[in-house]
Amino acid sequence: MKIALIGAGRVATHLGKALREAGHKVVQVYSRTLTSAEPLAAELGAEAITDLSRLTCEAEVYLFSVKDSVLQQLIREAAPGREDAVFLHTAGSMSLTTFEGIVRHYGVFYPMQTFSKEQEVCFREIPCFLEANDDKATTILETLAASISDRRYHLSSADRRYLHLAAVWACNFVNHCYDIASEVLESHGIPFDVMLPLIDETARKVHHLTPRQAQTGPAVRYDENVIGAQKQLLAADPLLQELYERLSLSIHNKSEQ
Amino acid sequence: MKIALIGAGRVATHLGKALREAGHKVVQVYSRTLTSAEPLAAELGAEAITDLSRLTCEAEVYLFSVKDSVLQQLIREAAPGREDAVFLHTAGSMSLTTFEGIVRHYGVFYPMQTFSKEQEVCFREIPCFLEANDDKATTILETLAASISDRRYHLSSADRRYLHLAAVWACNFVNHCYDIASEVLESHGIPFDVMLPLIDETARKVHHLTPRQAQTGPAVRYDENVIGAQKQLLAADPLLQELYERLSLSIHNKSEQ
Repeated sequence: MKIALIGAGRVATHLGKALREAGHKVVQVYSRTLTSAEPLAAELGAEAITDLSRLTCEAEVYLFSVKDSVLQQLIREAAPGREDAVFLHTAGSMSLTTFEGIVRHYGVFYPMQTFSKEQEVCFREIPCFLEANDDKATTILETLAASISDRRYHLSSADRRYLHLAAVWACNFVNHCYDIASEVLESHGIPFDVMLPLIDETARKVHHLTPRQAQTGPAVRYDENVIGAQKQLLAADPLLQELYERLSLSIHNKSEQ
Repeated sequence: MKIALIGAGRVATHLGKALREAGHKVVQVYSRTLTSAEPLAAELGAEAITDLSRLTCEAEVYLFSVKDSVLQQLIREAAPGREDAVFLHTAGSMSLTTFEGIVRHYGVFYPMQTFSKEQEVCFREIPCFLEANDDKATTILETLAASISDRRYHLSSADRRYLHLAAVWACNFVNHCYDIASEVLESHGIPFDVMLPLIDETARKVHHLTPRQAQTGPAVRYDENVIGAQKQLLAADPLLQELYERLSLSIHNKSEQ
């Protein structure tokens, strides 16, 4: 398929590479600045553009992977004269209706993963959540998704909001807990990598047990001695102390359900 | 070495198995009830006891792996007549001074991992944190630790408190975030296992990046639209809503440091 990629951030980069590897032709990469459009365009064998007036009319798919706040405006600018193409966005938090009344064939392609520029991922294993407005968009979206991922699910915009919320808990908030652990260790000269076997095992356990079954530690039994002492260690940071207290309370509440 | 194991919970179970595999002789397993002492004792080829008056005087090491709240009382009961032995406990949150004035040779052997009865672990990879009060205890503790783990560190009680606090963040609080994600998905009929590639990648990333560098998602840039909408989705649970808000704020604060 001939694809124009609007956006050159982390998601666009990983997606663009996966599409190229699957044999698709990425014809253009749009970004606000050449600094960000050019390296990705070069890697994909595409043309870099920074002005949507230069957007090709030849693509079958216009794939938007940009900040939520500018998504609809960019769709509006790109829409005229491209009524036969399929428009897709990759935003977990944005509804299918973002496209409504602007383009004819449209859909959402949400690859649920945490992408870093520095780290390769295996796209075939990434769960991708699909939604489209009509038969044409559905066919194109399914074909495109099947060419790069083995884990595809159809999911409505309403349910995708909850999926995205769950992803924030399981990824961003989890990573923040790693960050706090790292700070606590660093301030006592202990290297963060002593934590990696524990981090890996904590992730591995929920492949076989529910998180509720897997839970251990002082909060489950609400051990007031340990909880009180650990809160004291965080006294220099009231926000962390409060987070500690509420997370402990929440663990204990759930363990009693 | 001849070892008496006081406790038959998760840590005692995994540690007992690792010690036996390393060629040590676990002679007795004490627990309050036979129901918990007997299966482990049978597995280790040891005698099960429920009364410390029957505790052997022949062991070189008395290894305590029990709830923090009963630890010192059990040490007191076990101490008389065993002045030449080395007493060890496995509690991350308990100081070396727990033994002070009660026994002569003592130390802490803290294996930092999350143990489940159902799941095997590779003990050799578990970071173990060691502390002892004299040369004899140090020698015995180091020999014992080296026989079952390749990752051994000497750490004072003062610093171990911070290590244990970091472990609560990196394991218990992380697992609680998985639990909340699981609940959110379940309430919308989405299976938790769609989350596993994201969970695995989030853990994998911090092997190569700092958690700060690895962070993604709406909270980094404090995207008020997404954050406001996601808070609404949690409206039925004020504690979760508050946690969501404070975790987002904390992520944003750190990202600006």
